Formats: sequence, structure tokens, C-alpha cells
Amino acid sequence: MIIEERLADMGLVLPEPMVAPAGVTVPIAWARRYGDRVYLSGHTPLHADGTIAGPFGRVGSKIKTAQAYDAARRCTLSMLASLKREIGDLDAVAAWLRIEGYVLTAPGFYQLSNVINGCSDLLGELFGPEIARHARSSIGVAATPFDCPVFLAAEVAITSGS
Amino acid sequence: MIIEERLADMGLVLPEPMVAPAGVTVPIAWARRYGDRVYLSGHTPLHADGTIAGPFGRVGSKIKTAQAYDAARRCTLSMLASLKREIGDLDAVAAWLRIEGYVLTAPGFYQLSNVINGCSDLLGELFGPEIARHARSSIGVAATPFDCPVFLAAEVAITSGS
Amino acid sequence: MIIEERLADMGLVLPEPMVAPAGVTVPIAWARRYGDRVYLSGHTPLHADGTIAGPFGRVGSKIKTAQAYDAARRCTLSMLASLKREIGDLDAVAAWLRIEGYVLTAPGFYQLSNVINGCSDLLGELFGPEIARHARSSIGVAATPFDCPVFLAAEVAITSGS
Repeated sequence: MIIEERLADMGLVLPEPMVAPAGVTVPIAWARRYGDRVYLSGHTPLHADGTIAGPFGRVGSKIKTAQAYDAARRCTLSMLASLKREIGDLDAVAAWLRIEGYVLTAPGFYQLSNVINGCSDLLGELFGPEIARHARSSIGVAATPFDCPVFLAAEVAITSGS
Repeated sequence: MIIEERLADMGLVLPEPMVAPAGVTVPIAWARRYGDRVYLSGHTPLHADGTIAGPFGRVGSKIKTAQAYDAARRCTLSMLASLKREIGDLDAVAAWLRIEGYVLTAPGFYQLSNVINGCSDLLGELFGPEIARHARSSIGVAATPFDCPVFLAAEVAITSGS
Repeated sequence: MIIEERLADMGLVLPEPMVAPAGVTVPIAWARRYGDRVYLSGHTPLHADGTIAGPFGRVGSKIKTAQAYDAARRCTLSMLASLKREIGDLDAVAAWLRIEGYVLTAPGFYQLSNVINGCSDLLGELFGPEIARHARSSIGVAATPFDCPVFLAAEVAITSGS
């Protein structure tokens, strides 16, 4: 349980599954394992109890880059929590293959990389450079689920036998 | 031909390949099989004859959520039609792995999940919860092909030997 | 080195790795090989020396469709350069599986296919119709890295043993 020990050492907590707001149903798998791959749905920042975490709004106006970086870090914890529930042990991750980082942008903001680094940096700290090494697209979007400033999707390879 | 029987029982018809509007060329594969995977291009709603189906415009202003849900359902039929042409038999689908649902949003609209549920619900009805179980990202975008309110892309696993 | 000979015959040059602008760090893999797959990050147009190539701005207002088509072609060269650095030989490409083409759109512009054809056409010319055959999504976005009019991500299969 190396990865979970690192999370604990860093004071980070994996949140409960997302609690959908009233009127919203989400009939999907947050993580979908098939063979040696796990596909991760678009994940928003969550509080430890699974409620959606603010701040909300557009990066570059209401939300500053540092806040958005932190939101990307929280999205990563949401992904790790779903991944753990799907495969049991985060140490089974063999490779982070690709990340899509969606940023809710205000007009004129395009420092997208510096936002999604909140995910890439955390993966590097937790998994080390070899396993964390991933392709990434940082995309400025018109709308996100629940008006979150950032959300993240990913594809992961896991060790065979796990 | 279980899936096609279900479609027929539900009164649903798989459309012909997309008829590109004048001035548009689309030099791509609507479905690209490789090994046990099929990659599905971004699909718009289509009429049975392959012409692009309206309504057109932004969800949250001109287009209501219920209309967009229906558009997502129609995009799903477009995907199923391409998938059938590529692999021959929809019963060969082993798993819906990931869906990207792109929604053309008006300012202030972010109930994206309730739109893309038009896809997820139909896949569940047709394929059952185990095969239909998929990761999903619902993304609010600035523009879509042909101003469609929704379009969908996906990755599917098929049974080996099929 | 068939593909590289074709590039040379066409007078096309693969650019150096992206030189990040001041204040931007990009802690990612431009290409991430795992088994027989290579995942390609979102790539912008680059000059031969790796600096980001203009023009910059929105397609449909400042940037015309023909310029955006050319930008998509340049993004493709950026992807090919990263792919070559990751796998050594572009002749090892067995299949272009999927392309995501992100277009920075001005209001009212939705001829997205005609922009991303700059990628699909070049792949067809270089790799031939069978290997180049790919699924594709063309997505109109609110913001792109560095305000580029187009950027592209992809997934590629390579021959086993390569």
C-alpha cells in the first residue's frame, strides 16, 4: 500500500463517491476496468464526504490560476478514489497513459498547462516519474459539470494479475 | 441479433452513413476497429437517411434539456449504425469503455450529465448494465460540427474472434 | 524510413520539442508508449526550432479556414516529431486509431471538419489509406494552450516488436 502511505504522509484523503446534486442522475462508472486498462470518467473536485467542492466559476476571472491548480489536484484525488474502488489497490497502477484536463475559462485565459499541472505534479509525487509519465491535453471549455473550474478524465494501465 | 431485435422492439432505426453537407468532406472512419477495440468518431444526430437531424443550436437557450437528451439518444443510434457497419454484429460488443459527450452550451447551462444520460440510458436498455457500464466525460463546448446541440464519441471492446 | 522519405519529398520538416514560453512548465510526455500503443498529448503548431508557431486567435474571425487547415497540418508534424522521438521509426506505425481535433472558434463558426482535415489529409498522404484510417472528433473549444487556433491529440498503434 505504498501509494496510500504516501497520500497519508502528505495529509491527503481520498473522497467518498460523488454525491450527485438534487435532480442529477449519473448512470455511469466512475472507473471502468477492462483487461489491463481502467478508464476514468470526468472527475470534479470533491470534499471528503463526496459532495462537490468549490470554488466554482471561470478560471481567469473569478478563479485564479493557483486556485485552479488546487482544483486540479483535488480532481486527481477524486480519480484516485474511484480507481481504488475499482481495482482495490493503487499500487497496481502500471502507467498513467493519458489525461484530459478540462478548464472552464474566462475570455483571454489560456494558461491551461499551469492549471492541469495540479494533476501532473501530484501524480509525479505519488507514483514517481516512470509510472506517472503521461500524455495530456489541456482544453479550455465553455461549460463543466456543476460549474467546476476544472475536471479531469484519464486512462490508466494496471499490472496484469491485479 | 439480440441487440438489433431490441432496437426493433423499441421502434428504433439505425441511420444510413452521414450525408455530408455541401462543401464538407469528412475523410475519416466513423468507426475504426483495431484488434478487440473499436474507436468511434464524434457522431451527430442523423435522420434515417443519413442527413443531419435538428434541432440545432445551444442547450440552455434555444434547445431545452429534454430535446438535448433526445439528441444524445439519436447520436447513440448514429454510433451504433457505424459500429454495426464496422463489425457486422452488435452482439459482438463486450464492453462500452468510455463515452465523450460534447454539449453545445448557452451561458449559464451546466446540467451536462442530464443531457448525456440520453446516451447512457439507451446503452443500458440495449446492452444491460454489465456491457453498458462505461466511463464518461460530459463536456460543454463552444462549437460542434454543423451546430448540433450534442455529439458523442466512444471506445468499445468487442469479443475476440468477432 | 519510408515515412521520413515521404516527408522529405514533400519538403516537410519535423520540429524540435516544444520550447515552453516563459512561466510555463509542461511536466508531461509528448508521446507515451505503452505496449503496442502510443498516446499523443495535445500538440500545437511549432516552428522547426520548437517555438510555438502562429497565427494565433479564433477561427472564423481573425483566422480563416485555410489558415486553420494549415495549422492542423503543422500540429500533425508536431505529433509526428514526438512520435518519432518516442518510438524511433515512424514506419513502425500500424494504425492511427483516433484523433481529437480542438478548434478555437469564433461565434458562429462550426465548419470544424474542414479545419481538422489538415491533419487527416496529411496522414493519408504519408501513411496511405489503410494505416491512416482513423476515428476523429472535431471539437470547438473556448480556449487552447497559448491561443493557438488548433491543437491535436491522438492514439496510435505500433507494430509489435518495434
